[in-house]
Amino acid sequence: MSKPVVLITAGDPLGIGPEITVQALQHPHVRQACVPVVIGEPRSLTKAGFNTGLARLLPIDMPAVLTGKPRPTQLGGRVSFQAVETGIKLALKTGFPLVTAPINKQSWRLAGIPFTGHTELLRARTGADGLMMFCAGTIRCALVTEHFALADVPQLLTIKRVKSCAVHFIKALEKLGIASPNIGVCALNPHASDDGKFGHEENAILTPAIRALRRQGYAVKGPLPTDAAWIAHLHQTYDGLLCMYHDQALLGLKLAAREPAVHITAGLPFLRTSPAHGTAFDIAGQHKAAPQSMIAAILFAAKHANQPN
Amino acid sequence: MSKPVVLITAGDPLGIGPEITVQALQHPHVRQACVPVVIGEPRSLTKAGFNTGLARLLPIDMPAVLTGKPRPTQLGGRVSFQAVETGIKLALKTGFPLVTAPINKQSWRLAGIPFTGHTELLRARTGADGLMMFCAGTIRCALVTEHFALADVPQLLTIKRVKSCAVHFIKALEKLGIASPNIGVCALNPHASDDGKFGHEENAILTPAIRALRRQGYAVKGPLPTDAAWIAHLHQTYDGLLCMYHDQALLGLKLAAREPAVHITAGLPFLRTSPAHGTAFDIAGQHKAAPQSMIAAILFAAKHANQPN
Repeated sequence: MSKPVVLITAGDPLGIGPEITVQALQHPHVRQACVPVVIGEPRSLTKAGFNTGLARLLPIDMPAVLTGKPRPTQLGGRVSFQAVETGIKLALKTGFPLVTAPINKQSWRLAGIPFTGHTELLRARTGADGLMMFCAGTIRCALVTEHFALADVPQLLTIKRVKSCAVHFIKALEKLGIASPNIGVCALNPHASDDGKFGHEENAILTPAIRALRRQGYAVKGPLPTDAAWIAHLHQTYDGLLCMYHDQALLGLKLAAREPAVHITAGLPFLRTSPAHGTAFDIAGQHKAAPQSMIAAILFAAKHANQPN
Repeated sequence: MSKPVVLITAGDPLGIGPEITVQALQHPHVRQACVPVVIGEPRSLTKAGFNTGLARLLPIDMPAVLTGKPRPTQLGGRVSFQAVETGIKLALKTGFPLVTAPINKQSWRLAGIPFTGHTELLRARTGADGLMMFCAGTIRCALVTEHFALADVPQLLTIKRVKSCAVHFIKALEKLGIASPNIGVCALNPHASDDGKFGHEENAILTPAIRALRRQGYAVKGPLPTDAAWIAHLHQTYDGLLCMYHDQALLGLKLAAREPAVHITAGLPFLRTSPAHGTAFDIAGQHKAAPQSMIAAILFAAKHANQPN
């Protein structure tokens, strides 16, 4: 069997993207698993140790040289955006998986780019919903709401939204090779509201959504009190947890994961993964950045390359 | 040095309270650490193996015998409430620490008791605020808001409330023997709102509260993104984490703790601890209940018996 091609965007040239990309490309497991194609700014990649023996490079040239300490910049925003645009076009055309090293949201803002980040751009270019999902070994979670103020979360929850996210999540788990996935749905309120004593969302939204999903034949349990849900997930009671808000997912993931977490956008016409961290300007260029999450993101993409996600 | 007296209420007679109390009293560390005085319903305690060689018993008699499977009952509510009332009176008079086995909130409601649970009763009887706090080895956290719908949390946060909880928390940590405690304050919103991009509470409430605390000489850091705060706490960067809502504390605690968690109400005229679980009617009387959290609660109370909390 020939090795799958994996498209890799190198992220903001001033962040840790180029160095973790190069370190990942040098990793024997990555070399063994795929044929990498890197899309990024050549100078920052060369500085980080890139050479054409490591991967094919699709260069995104920068009109000027960026100097000074790592920070959000218009140029960094423009070039990292161009790389992702090129990566998405290629992925849509070829079906190859796309791995994205971190961009900086403020750099994109400075460059006048009308997308908050990768996920919004991916949604716009593919027309797909795109479910935010994380995997770290047997720990898997997906988010019903993403980057919102906590005060806005309750009104964003609807039966329709919860059902749609659960179905996307189950389909994504199936594509990862899990037969008849069994998911847990986290409650919004403490103690799952103790039957409506603190909060109505369990009785009004989550329980009806779960009942409807079960009637459709899906293996869905809940609403589960957050702490109990995560402890059960740690003991592999569920194949994945559907979380209502960002920190319910990320706090559980970071504390429960025993291996590097991979961020996945599920439900797109191609598989997209990324490391579960940002540009880390504070440590960029200092040989401090840990490439494990980037390596995990590339290996994950290579492993599931032939299952459009 | 003579052993400290520890007052122990046995909880709902139909729940796991009597059995975990008896198991704890039989534990060699507990026998070594304190002179226990148990306040509870005698029949359920005897059935769980209690004898007067284990502890002195202040009996709270029940007017009738409770039969049938473990469940919320008016009688169970009445007798467990009486035990806690007696315990609080004794603790206020003597300064002895009070350990409370689980009561059932629905049993209290059935008995017409106008308090949701232990904490509300403790607040009413002592006139003190009472900060909800958990300890499990070096993992320590306190809650700014407790049993509220998540939708109500943002409007409950005020600079005054956050400051007051932080000061109570720091004082409680000092009483536990930590000199100049250094606490982290969790953000409410994901990524600590990314400078106001999702949610205003960090900029409007948490940052001003933290600045004011620091001006007063307290070692307080934040607002910290939830996941990063807990990972840092796991590495002992902070002596404790101040959490804004129930699940931010409990999810972190349950996943980070490597030993049984003790629930503490800090800021009362006496030290009050309890196990970090409920009546567990589903497993009561089946020799399945794990006494570790109850044992930890009693040992914690004995250890810190002479520091009014």
